[in-house]
Amino acid sequence: MIVALAGGVGAARFLRGLTRAVPPTQVTVVSNTADDDVFHGLHVSPDVDTVVYTLAGLSDEERGWGLAGETWNVMDALAALGGGTWFRLGDRDLATHLLRSGRLRSGATLSQVTAEIASALGVRVRVLPMSDDPVQTRVELASGEEVSFQDYFVRLAHDVPIRGIRFAGVDAASPAPGVLESIAAADVVVICPSNPIVSIGPILALPGVAAGLSCRRDSVVAVSPIVAGAAVKGPAARMLAELGIEASVSGVAGVYAEVAGTLVVDEADRDLAAEVERTGCRCVVAPSLMSSPAAAERLARVALDAVGGPGG
Amino acid sequence: MIVALAGGVGAARFLRGLTRAVPPTQVTVVSNTADDDVFHGLHVSPDVDTVVYTLAGLSDEERGWGLAGETWNVMDALAALGGGTWFRLGDRDLATHLLRSGRLRSGATLSQVTAEIASALGVRVRVLPMSDDPVQTRVELASGEEVSFQDYFVRLAHDVPIRGIRFAGVDAASPAPGVLESIAAADVVVICPSNPIVSIGPILALPGVAAGLSCRRDSVVAVSPIVAGAAVKGPAARMLAELGIEASVSGVAGVYAEVAGTLVVDEADRDLAAEVERTGCRCVVAPSLMSSPAAAERLARVALDAVGGPGG
Repeated sequence: MIVALAGGVGAARFLRGLTRAVPPTQVTVVSNTADDDVFHGLHVSPDVDTVVYTLAGLSDEERGWGLAGETWNVMDALAALGGGTWFRLGDRDLATHLLRSGRLRSGATLSQVTAEIASALGVRVRVLPMSDDPVQTRVELASGEEVSFQDYFVRLAHDVPIRGIRFAGVDAASPAPGVLESIAAADVVVICPSNPIVSIGPILALPGVAAGLSCRRDSVVAVSPIVAGAAVKGPAARMLAELGIEASVSGVAGVYAEVAGTLVVDEADRDLAAEVERTGCRCVVAPSLMSSPAAAERLARVALDAVGGPGG
Repeated sequence: MIVALAGGVGAARFLRGLTRAVPPTQVTVVSNTADDDVFHGLHVSPDVDTVVYTLAGLSDEERGWGLAGETWNVMDALAALGGGTWFRLGDRDLATHLLRSGRLRSGATLSQVTAEIASALGVRVRVLPMSDDPVQTRVELASGEEVSFQDYFVRLAHDVPIRGIRFAGVDAASPAPGVLESIAAADVVVICPSNPIVSIGPILALPGVAAGLSCRRDSVVAVSPIVAGAAVKGPAARMLAELGIEASVSGVAGVYAEVAGTLVVDEADRDLAAEVERTGCRCVVAPSLMSSPAAAERLARVALDAVGGPGG
């Protein structure tokens, strides 16, 4: 069994490769929920949905988020009413949020409704939200203002300097049922190529998760989301630098050194392998750009092989 | 100034006529909110929306509810996810519910968001929800089960016998700001041709409303929703009978006698005028079927004229 800690798009693409390398039913995904937010009264779980939609083969590859063939009738009508539409919710995507919000309101847990949605969309990977409790990434801007992650990421287009990150609620939150158990029981844990600070960081900050990984770090492998000093997608490089962490594979290795025994880096970063290893992470070099599902599958096999896992 | 107590479709059609007879800015509508409900986490106000959409000229006349030119992409996707879709929410209609739910969550009152939506849709009538506090019509079925009004009305298609109605929360609720004041200050109060039990009943049950009408009942006129022993639309006749009230204009007069000095009945019920008057209501006979906006306007003028109001 394989456990994968996952953020959004990068993780979803990696997982699509991973599920070509090993049977989907052998994979448990622990999905970041600290960038969940409420829009117009609806509970939106962007990372969970990105993973589920991608594994279901329903994601929009060109736009990079949301569902393929999406329509926007609700947003158009909301704009006409003068409502806020900076967080775009497509019509089909809204159905997911309606289902989730209704089920949560009627007493279901996020774990339960996530499993229901994944099942309804034919996803055979087990997708666990990291927690059923509310944890919210708060971004402290350089201006001193604190905003939610979606405010920073979408509304402000992550185009403002930051000076801090915190995960509100994380100390009081419990990992969702199955998270610690599956980490303890897994043959291999993969940390997907996601933002180490705001996608993987909240998962690691949950009580028991980092400790559970540390005591088995030899079979934990991370895939760097930073290639040649830049993020493949999103603000990871800028965030790392603004938070005083080197925006490089060795910076990533430093973040993960206590929980992951191995870091997979791109060939472009071959020269930094020694620096990575100085953090205590073994460094594996491989082509890491997931330009196709086949490329993602090759990367997944490299990661599994690096820690002696199945499908490697 | 005219105040109109209103339920859903029948009231909306009457109000469209009324606003042809007098300037819209002279009309305040007090709208039933006891059949409001929460679907998929969203606050839905069916009667308020029916009135607003109709006055905005946006309602679907053939279907009898919702918006003209509506699309159903969200509901189709929700059905594919296995979500409940017995309460159909169109895409454009959903925008209203998203706006309302988001605003309520951020601390706005139902009065505020109702005014915002009406204004955004160009409605110049003042539309007040009857209360900013939660009041919910509960329907006791003959089976003993108690359900929400929408459960009864939509899910069960009002095709089951009932034995009781109560308005949960009404004793603790206050009329919305402006309701009692506008009733006290109005030249005329019109009780629209709506279900006397579940559309007008909750408004009358709010603390202070029935008393405010009683002390000025000579200038309060009701229009009977019952014609020749049947409801023009909906389950009013059946509900009256099942609750032990005669399903006739004299039954309606009995319900309204304490608050309305005059009842307008259809020509088909001319023979019952004496019976109506025995309840203490003056009876005015006129064609009451609102087959067109012009017919609704004529009916509104009859009602206004019956109590010496403007536009009569």
